[in-house]
Amino acid sequence: MALVVQKFGGSSVSDATAMKRVARRVAATRRAGNDVVVVVSAMGDTTDELLDLAAQITDEPPAREMDILLTAGERISMALLALAINAEGVEARSYTGQQAGVMTDSRYGKASITGVVPDRITRTLAEGQVAIVAGFQGVNDSNDVTTLGRGGSDTTAVALAAALKADACEIYTDVDGVYTADPRVVRSARRIPRLSTEETLELASHGAKILHLRAVEFARRYDVPLHVRSSFSDLEGTWVVNPTEEEPLEEPIIAGVAHDRSQGKVTVVGVHDEPGAAARLFTAVAAADVNIDMIVQNISHETHKTDISFTVPEADVAEAVLAIQEAKDTLAFDDIVYNANIGIVSLVGAGMRTNPGVSATLFGALAQAGINIEMISTSEIRISVVVESDRVDDAVRAIHTAFGLDSADTEAVVYGGTGR
Amino acid sequence: MALVVQKFGGSSVSDATAMKRVARRVAATRRAGNDVVVVVSAMGDTTDELLDLAAQITDEPPAREMDILLTAGERISMALLALAINAEGVEARSYTGQQAGVMTDSRYGKASITGVVPDRITRTLAEGQVAIVAGFQGVNDSNDVTTLGRGGSDTTAVALAAALKADACEIYTDVDGVYTADPRVVRSARRIPRLSTEETLELASHGAKILHLRAVEFARRYDVPLHVRSSFSDLEGTWVVNPTEEEPLEEPIIAGVAHDRSQGKVTVVGVHDEPGAAARLFTAVAAADVNIDMIVQNISHETHKTDISFTVPEADVAEAVLAIQEAKDTLAFDDIVYNANIGIVSLVGAGMRTNPGVSATLFGALAQAGINIEMISTSEIRISVVVESDRVDDAVRAIHTAFGLDSADTEAVVYGGTGR
Repeated sequence: MALVVQKFGGSSVSDATAMKRVARRVAATRRAGNDVVVVVSAMGDTTDELLDLAAQITDEPPAREMDILLTAGERISMALLALAINAEGVEARSYTGQQAGVMTDSRYGKASITGVVPDRITRTLAEGQVAIVAGFQGVNDSNDVTTLGRGGSDTTAVALAAALKADACEIYTDVDGVYTADPRVVRSARRIPRLSTEETLELASHGAKILHLRAVEFARRYDVPLHVRSSFSDLEGTWVVNPTEEEPLEEPIIAGVAHDRSQGKVTVVGVHDEPGAAARLFTAVAAADVNIDMIVQNISHETHKTDISFTVPEADVAEAVLAIQEAKDTLAFDDIVYNANIGIVSLVGAGMRTNPGVSATLFGALAQAGINIEMISTSEIRISVVVESDRVDDAVRAIHTAFGLDSADTEAVVYGGTGR
Repeated sequence: MALVVQKFGGSSVSDATAMKRVARRVAATRRAGNDVVVVVSAMGDTTDELLDLAAQITDEPPAREMDILLTAGERISMALLALAINAEGVEARSYTGQQAGVMTDSRYGKASITGVVPDRITRTLAEGQVAIVAGFQGVNDSNDVTTLGRGGSDTTAVALAAALKADACEIYTDVDGVYTADPRVVRSARRIPRLSTEETLELASHGAKILHLRAVEFARRYDVPLHVRSSFSDLEGTWVVNPTEEEPLEEPIIAGVAHDRSQGKVTVVGVHDEPGAAARLFTAVAAADVNIDMIVQNISHETHKTDISFTVPEADVAEAVLAIQEAKDTLAFDDIVYNANIGIVSLVGAGMRTNPGVSATLFGALAQAGINIEMISTSEIRISVVVESDRVDDAVRAIHTAFGLDSADTEAVVYGGTGR
């Protein structure tokens, strides 16, 4: 008997039929003797429909009211799921974020969880009932509802699992785990049975869409074992765990290859190479509320001049360029060039730390495939390269093969859409 | 400067365009210097759509979960209306029943308001903002959401108006007030400028769909002036007030004619006329959860035998007949006859009390129109007759004319569907 938190995304509860499928799984888990907490997202397109309604009314909606609007989606799905689970003969009660004690700060639309006081959930479990909790939402000090932003339901699930000291937090999705590469790109990609939270963070922040960054960070900090698995099968998925001294993770050198096509590259040419230049540059970009991923500055070719390149989300390229041009007074440079058609391919693996030669193999593979590298950036357990957008797939495949990740026998099963 | 509660039903906020129209009215009321509290129902068909989703999942939904599901509708409409009012340049905040302090008992689906603690609403008004409150919902002692059942949004509005000591509670609908008869039946019906709560109760409980019984009862008890008016025009509608000694209502003898086609008639023939017979009969019917409206028992023709007739909602006729047949052991009678195709026509007027001859005029009018009366029932300020369903319209017109209610010049304006 264990305490399990099960999280189902919008595609897992897109209609009544899907809802019943989820209910059968939850009921089976409960009947097997487990305490079950279910975290659920809004059904399929509900959130988009609500956003569309709002857009018909105004371009500048107050953030507080948008959060009230959007949380209606989870309210609907949690109540319907409660009906479905009760119809399976297992008692279930549904709770809003507020009722479940999910406390947040007041940054509407992107609130952070500040604490979880799950008294009602604990009582519900003690009474032998399944507790269903609306994902993506919480309540601030003023008793106003807030939303957690993208990936919010994953975060709700992990935060609840942490507060309840759950034995596992199961994240259900339309793929049956985390793969060594996107199975849509690499057909011979293999499911990874175990990943460290560290590797998962690197994969998630470099394009692997299987888990949301904030949820993984939460899981690492509070030591919540995550189990990423398919809502369409009973197969074991991928476990994401913190390795401990007693239970070190058996680490293959390489975990997998992630890719991200949603980035663009900006290069500021001929920046006057003096103390504070980079600070002024990135202060200007940050002021435009643009998130920067990779930054590369190379040695100066000319005296006192250097080139600084960075990547930003494709949609923010224009914004970033404009912000820099407007800061030209305080920021001496010759030119700005940018390219929205790039992709970032990242090789991730905790074993990389102690294995020299990984980068050589990677660059060799890309060279052999005739793929030009535009930028390189590394962390302790990751090597990322920027390549032209239309070479991303080739790069992923070349790297996947070069590191022996291809599976001979199994082929990945992709069940549905793109998930959350 | 006054404090006004404005209630808008589902047809007034059916889409973004309607929402904006409501927002302009609210903004204008606020700009005129009034404190404004808006109570809003779910958009158009939202509630029906949610009910349909639930029906796809189970036939026996737990009541608590159904209330959570259904309250999502008001949550959406209140947030969207907040967007629309803010877009008009007037600050507005939306509140759920729980946030607005609408406390109820725990009878899910038909909860009664036990108290209103509108602290947040008062603060919102003090800050010069419009407060929007979700109609139809409250919260019980366990912090679980409840719904108030049919007419719930009207009740929310009146209860808030009472708690806030509002100067008026405006109920917006698609007709511009209460008419002397249904304008769809009697084209020469006139708008009634003022009605007593007593008359309104009689009209509402006998088929006039303009206001919900519970809301009127609330208004009478807490002395809340109601103003029933159109959301499509600026015309004055109908004021529903408690007459006081200082301000007696100028009472015409007759207020109006209501009709109700949704009733059926059951007659139990040859009931043994002994003490307790009627009690046993109606206990049996009540046990089947069937609501009885009119009851008529006439003198016995034969010794020790009598006929008892009563009306129940059409949909419950079969249930009632069955309940009585099953109670045959303890209930001696000869036969049951029933007719689902009847209608009740009611003449209502507070002046009736002091004016003899009203019933004579009414029966004369029906006789002249060749309409057979099947049952008669009266209260102090009402006379109701049961007639065949297909003679209801004729009966309403005949009575309307006989009491001089026809308008020579104005013709009623009916704007939309059937309202709430």
